Amino acid sequence: MPKLNENYQNLKESYLFVEIAHRVAKYAEANPDKKIIRLGIGDVTLPLEPLAVAGLHEGVDAMTSTETFKGYGPEQGYDFLRQAVVDYYAENGISIQADDVFISDGAKSDTGNIGDLFAKDNIVLIPDPVYPVYVDTNVMTGREIIYIDANAENNFLPMPDKHVHADLIYICSPNNPTGAAYNKEQLKAWVDYALENDAVIFYDSAYEAFITDPELPRSIFAVEGAKKCAIEFCSLSKTAGFTGTRCGYTVVPQELVFKASNGEEMSVNAMWKRRQTTKFNGTSYIVQKGAAAIFTKEGMAQCRENIAYYQKNAKTISDVLSKKGIRFFGGKNSPYIWFECPKGMDSWDFFDYLLNNAQVVGTPGAGFGKNGQNFFRLTSFGTHESTKEAMERFEKLF
Amino acid sequence: MPKLNENYQNLKESYLFVEIAHRVAKYAEANPDKKIIRLGIGDVTLPLEPLAVAGLHEGVDAMTSTETFKGYGPEQGYDFLRQAVVDYYAENGISIQADDVFISDGAKSDTGNIGDLFAKDNIVLIPDPVYPVYVDTNVMTGREIIYIDANAENNFLPMPDKHVHADLIYICSPNNPTGAAYNKEQLKAWVDYALENDAVIFYDSAYEAFITDPELPRSIFAVEGAKKCAIEFCSLSKTAGFTGTRCGYTVVPQELVFKASNGEEMSVNAMWKRRQTTKFNGTSYIVQKGAAAIFTKEGMAQCRENIAYYQKNAKTISDVLSKKGIRFFGGKNSPYIWFECPKGMDSWDFFDYLLNNAQVVGTPGAGFGKNGQNFFRLTSFGTHESTKEAMERFEKLF
Repeated sequence: MPKLNENYQNLKESYLFVEIAHRVAKYAEANPDKKIIRLGIGDVTLPLEPLAVAGLHEGVDAMTSTETFKGYGPEQGYDFLRQAVVDYYAENGISIQADDVFISDGAKSDTGNIGDLFAKDNIVLIPDPVYPVYVDTNVMTGREIIYIDANAENNFLPMPDKHVHADLIYICSPNNPTGAAYNKEQLKAWVDYALENDAVIFYDSAYEAFITDPELPRSIFAVEGAKKCAIEFCSLSKTAGFTGTRCGYTVVPQELVFKASNGEEMSVNAMWKRRQTTKFNGTSYIVQKGAAAIFTKEGMAQCRENIAYYQKNAKTISDVLSKKGIRFFGGKNSPYIWFECPKGMDSWDFFDYLLNNAQVVGTPGAGFGKNGQNFFRLTSFGTHESTKEAMERFEKLF
Repeated sequence: MPKLNENYQNLKESYLFVEIAHRVAKYAEANPDKKIIRLGIGDVTLPLEPLAVAGLHEGVDAMTSTETFKGYGPEQGYDFLRQAVVDYYAENGISIQADDVFISDGAKSDTGNIGDLFAKDNIVLIPDPVYPVYVDTNVMTGREIIYIDANAENNFLPMPDKHVHADLIYICSPNNPTGAAYNKEQLKAWVDYALENDAVIFYDSAYEAFITDPELPRSIFAVEGAKKCAIEFCSLSKTAGFTGTRCGYTVVPQELVFKASNGEEMSVNAMWKRRQTTKFNGTSYIVQKGAAAIFTKEGMAQCRENIAYYQKNAKTISDVLSKKGIRFFGGKNSPYIWFECPKGMDSWDFFDYLLNNAQVVGTPGAGFGKNGQNFFRLTSFGTHESTKEAMERFEKLF
């Protein structure tokens, strides 16, 4: 009998979006004349930037003749794209090497697969509320997880606790779902903690392009010492609307070296390269061409236009919340607005209340962890018109 | 200190293609006037089929307007493509369900990641010579590997040994690197063995499109009972020239159910779905549109044209080997021709001999395992002209 990975038995089924869909469908059926506005989804809606489209078409065209055809490419990504990522970091004042950069089909794959490089018996530190992938992938491996509370008291930006030891630390900033973003001083405290504990930080930077405040770092490598303790996961999903096109990149500094039990030094960069060359065959050349096009000056300007569109929605939402005196987080350096449910409601009750009385769909915070119990997430990924209408209804309701 | 996955210390560095590149570069430098012909590479060279190109462009075009834009898709693949795979199987007389089909970015990812579903303490059976990914991914997990000899005596088609127990079995047919392909009776013996041993067969079917002999099954599911013991990995890399475009599909039958130690039944299909929805975000919509286009009747006809081109090369190679009385395998139902090195040479010596005297580059069999020591692989992925010229030089040499 093959022995299955029985850790899978410990996974909690995620009913969050299934349950939301179920409740919305039920309401829609009972109220066919009501116009429902969905601001719950974490997916982009604007078309791809014209330069990305041109790059993708160019990639497809290369496949039409023997001279320009592309077969197997380097698993870590083409040099042209790795270098573009290096240049993008340089624009933000951060120096990384092309050999640190691994192009992939998205941050979800990489944050999921990075665990391959580490043994089972590491203690994992994960904030609550959280993007469920961090938890589930570690449950699959059977690792011990310590949760750290992110709540209104710490502005959903929990800080390290010297009395707690962890080996692997997940940080997402700007955060999904809370929209909270660490400043440099706070990130430095995490880097210092990691260096003291010989821990590794898995830094999910998927929403960095939404940072507008120049005081907030867009990469953990803005902090000195981070290259000795952090891996950064980045994505074009939200930066360039690549959620369905699929391209991400992960920075594994060559400085990230640890001693094995036999005393031998092991490079995490070399291990990740070995993992990717063994279990991955590279991101589609076509997609890499599209990605390279958005890393140009003009491409990035087009991305910023789309992001500005979403940011205007975020402002529409947060302006109404401010006006109503509802405490909220995010919205400024993040596409997510995370607010306290009015009238002390619990997040699922509030979900029903908002659906029934304003026909607006959001995401109950409880779906992201216990600290989300009384919070609610709205996203800025709708259209201007629907966001405006949703918030007019919201305003009337409270 | 984070505990690293120290199994990585047990991986052998693969110097095969690095060493080949080194020797070829050295020869080319010393002999700038000689024309080197490369028949070592396992990568396609013909442009994509016109319908695949049209499908890919269509996928890109969908990204240009809000109405047709595609964000996150189902991680398991779009229904249109899963159904196309079901129909493709049906054409070969095999019935599978759309829910059995998981679209991915390639068979390498899936054959690598499938191990996530199984515990460390399974005994793995792997043929030698072999595609190195099977070995390396199991070394990374620290599993015990038993090798089974594939050699000239068993026509490089090893059969199960009742006296040896294994839990996880890797079979690749038509085989990379040997080109040997199992018939139905032989596959039945493997299925029977797996059912008796409660083992799982990982069946790599990446080269099925090269099968011309109607007696040879193109899927393990042609064998009764296989759905209770096998997972099949398929790819468009060689079927449709997608090595750089990236699309594969894996069939995990819902019948594949095993008991966990607590007596609970666990569905491997459900586990793989959980794995993929947690650690993968789906294959690019653009690529899936391209893939769907080649699963049409006309698309498949265009694929067959490209395959026929390569098959003509395989015939050019095998005709010369036959004429010279050199024992070879593959070439008929496979893009690979695997032959015994003439004059009892060892495969690296023969590599040098062929390079120095005919300026033809192939792959030494020793790079795939100990049973490849005296064998050599040529591939049919070159042009007609270069393949013909290479074999003329070969013919003169012996």
